[in-house]
Amino acid sequence: MGRSVYENIRDKSFSYISRNFDNYVSLLKDLVSYKSVASWGLKGVGECANYLSDVLSSRGFKVSIKYGGGSPAILGEIGSGSKTVLIYNHYDVQPPEPLELWNSDPFELLIKDDLLIGRGVADNKGNIVARIAAVDALLEYLELLDLRIKFLIEGEEEVGSPTLANIIKDNLHWMSSDGGIWETGYVGADGRLEIPLGFKGILYLEIMLKKSNRDVHSGLAPLIPNPAWEIAKMLTYLKDEKGKVLIPEFYDDVDPKFISVAGELIRHIDPEDLKAVRKELGLDKFVNGLDGIDALRELYMKPSLNVSGLYSGYTGKGSKTIVPSVAGVKIDIRPLPGQKPEKILEIFTKYLRELGYSNIEIIVHGMYPAGYTEPDEEIVRASINAAEEVYGKYPKVLPIASGSSPIYLLTSVAGVPITGAGVGYFNSKVHAPNENIRREDFIRGIRHVVLTLINFSSKISKQ
Amino acid sequence: MGRSVYENIRDKSFSYISRNFDNYVSLLKDLVSYKSVASWGLKGVGECANYLSDVLSSRGFKVSIKYGGGSPAILGEIGSGSKTVLIYNHYDVQPPEPLELWNSDPFELLIKDDLLIGRGVADNKGNIVARIAAVDALLEYLELLDLRIKFLIEGEEEVGSPTLANIIKDNLHWMSSDGGIWETGYVGADGRLEIPLGFKGILYLEIMLKKSNRDVHSGLAPLIPNPAWEIAKMLTYLKDEKGKVLIPEFYDDVDPKFISVAGELIRHIDPEDLKAVRKELGLDKFVNGLDGIDALRELYMKPSLNVSGLYSGYTGKGSKTIVPSVAGVKIDIRPLPGQKPEKILEIFTKYLRELGYSNIEIIVHGMYPAGYTEPDEEIVRASINAAEEVYGKYPKVLPIASGSSPIYLLTSVAGVPITGAGVGYFNSKVHAPNENIRREDFIRGIRHVVLTLINFSSKISKQ
Repeated sequence: MGRSVYENIRDKSFSYISRNFDNYVSLLKDLVSYKSVASWGLKGVGECANYLSDVLSSRGFKVSIKYGGGSPAILGEIGSGSKTVLIYNHYDVQPPEPLELWNSDPFELLIKDDLLIGRGVADNKGNIVARIAAVDALLEYLELLDLRIKFLIEGEEEVGSPTLANIIKDNLHWMSSDGGIWETGYVGADGRLEIPLGFKGILYLEIMLKKSNRDVHSGLAPLIPNPAWEIAKMLTYLKDEKGKVLIPEFYDDVDPKFISVAGELIRHIDPEDLKAVRKELGLDKFVNGLDGIDALRELYMKPSLNVSGLYSGYTGKGSKTIVPSVAGVKIDIRPLPGQKPEKILEIFTKYLRELGYSNIEIIVHGMYPAGYTEPDEEIVRASINAAEEVYGKYPKVLPIASGSSPIYLLTSVAGVPITGAGVGYFNSKVHAPNENIRREDFIRGIRHVVLTLINFSSKISKQ
Repeated sequence: MGRSVYENIRDKSFSYISRNFDNYVSLLKDLVSYKSVASWGLKGVGECANYLSDVLSSRGFKVSIKYGGGSPAILGEIGSGSKTVLIYNHYDVQPPEPLELWNSDPFELLIKDDLLIGRGVADNKGNIVARIAAVDALLEYLELLDLRIKFLIEGEEEVGSPTLANIIKDNLHWMSSDGGIWETGYVGADGRLEIPLGFKGILYLEIMLKKSNRDVHSGLAPLIPNPAWEIAKMLTYLKDEKGKVLIPEFYDDVDPKFISVAGELIRHIDPEDLKAVRKELGLDKFVNGLDGIDALRELYMKPSLNVSGLYSGYTGKGSKTIVPSVAGVKIDIRPLPGQKPEKILEIFTKYLRELGYSNIEIIVHGMYPAGYTEPDEEIVRASINAAEEVYGKYPKVLPIASGSSPIYLLTSVAGVPITGAGVGYFNSKVHAPNENIRREDFIRGIRHVVLTLINFSSKISKQ
């Protein structure tokens, strides 16, 4: 089929979206009203899951609700084409606190000028609606496009997706798809859509050192071993002053294919974006004076190790005089594709033991590997071309996001190549008060999914 | 005058105390009922100060209430002898929290078996009552003893006596005395009264390092300078692994006379007491394996530097992934007699600057020098002899307490030699829930003050 068919489906779909846009704002309003905060327990998420399940069923989706031990996940399927696209989202949201910094009720969608404001509009309810809208717009063409669309909408992403692996492994055959779309994507200040082709993994450790039975009056400080000093000393063994991690083998095992892909992709990333971040944070320079392509290489081509938290003794206002009994540090490590977090945990533990830290407790708060998709995958090409058309600019394709997400469950466990799409923008205030999206990005986000799906069809070609 | 006069006054006084003991329990009950928590504001302390002022006035004390900018202090004076004793106490108490760990109302004196339980019974209201009782018992002999007794009862000791210096300096002539008794003293597990001849000073610093404008998602960790590492590194420059402080000149300026006195006194201290502390804390050994006389020397003959608190980033439960913008450490330094905390602050700041820490903020939460009295002072001999008679054992005379107290205001500013006395014991749970004293120690504590005053009189000698 030729260009005219592509244009015909595109124009009809876009026209459908314009005509029905108010319905999708209304659907987003409904979704935002559910207090589906996973960390608040199962009531809010359960009600939201039931509502969403009805929303999909009423459109003709075949829906089932799956339990992996935590929040339910919704599996919905529509179309019977030979090429399958798996669309991943989550209906749970971050807690709204601090409430006093919101200018409106976080669970009531506020439309103000060109902004839609409320908890979850960017992360991730706005994207759920955008994808439902895209499928609605294409519904009468699904057969022609020879597509089958699957929705996997989980309910505990914001607490680290602890049972998503169970759901995916229990339904591995259902997950099997030719391509997939990950939860989010953001429009940068330069107007380009950012598409990360993967996410780093995570190994979140808390290392605790207990030296005595209780805190003791610091009059005895000359005699009582203080764990704060030992934790401090330990940190100096983990990284050198240039930011290099000193744990032997820490940088090993990164997939060479990923390095080659990443090295190529970051040539096309404008390092000026990082300069803007640096300025906003009030920094004279980055770690080790990194800049330009070197900063990008550090960010996207190396695993990282960071102190997220450090504590010992009295940390409140003013003074209290004690020798603390306990000191602890929270460390997040982000492995790259190829690296196994279990192995990093092992070499880390071994290194600490060799340094003489025998009496420490290591708590693993979270652990999963990285996952990524190669840029020449069909679904990636489809989304890049769609983005170029919708946003009028070639997207910013990242080899991997700087953050972590258990995308490996789709890319590695279920074997689905994944791309990005999303309704958010650089100032969406994700996880923060006054989370918002721009009306225009909401529309463009729907259109981008529509074109990605058309582009992905084997039956239609743009040229 | 001879032995018979001493014995006569002693026996009559002791008999008075026995006959009237219930009245003093009742007075303690009244005092405990006042919620004179200085950190809760001026209402509770003001009411308690008024009550105490009435209690002293009704006994014939000439009373005035002084304001130095914070809680009022009560100055009371009775007798017109040529030898003056200044008795220091405080009527404010620590907050009672955590309330759930109290077995009774902290502000209602509970008498259970041989214990008197309530906030402040040991620190310091029980001692106020004991000293009032001692003066009552000696009232008719004050002229014969040629003594003048002054009470200085402040109301903000538990928040660091921020305005006591003003009160003492504004009333310096009134403070002038031949000897003084400090607020507390405790009976050890071995039945000996502990008498510290001084208190260390304090220099409480909070060092904060701010690296960027805000916490940032730790996906950016490879690029963003993390203050936790720098604070950790800094701590390793402050002390070596043997516990020695590395700041140049830190150990300088200690009064050689104090060192000589302390060296002599600690020969008579049983190091087994420290072993008991070590065991209770579950420690295999002290810092640097210190033990016996070496541990005592470290504790009483060297200034100390301790980390009371250390913080950066997320310190709550579970995980949060950020690069913290700020890291801080709370450090308490305890100077010895002769050392000036201002100078220690100066050399500390200079040392940090030389190490390259230019961008730090140093907050001084508290600062005053040490103070001590030489053991051959009359008031000290008087209290030691009194303790030997009342407790049946030679007291444990410490050159200096391991903790800090602004005793220098009396010993150095007002020039009054000071000794100790008190109604508490090793398990008094000072500053903690279920604070208590033993009935027997309450009686012995009164008797000890009575005999200290008789011994201090120039007109009476025991032999």
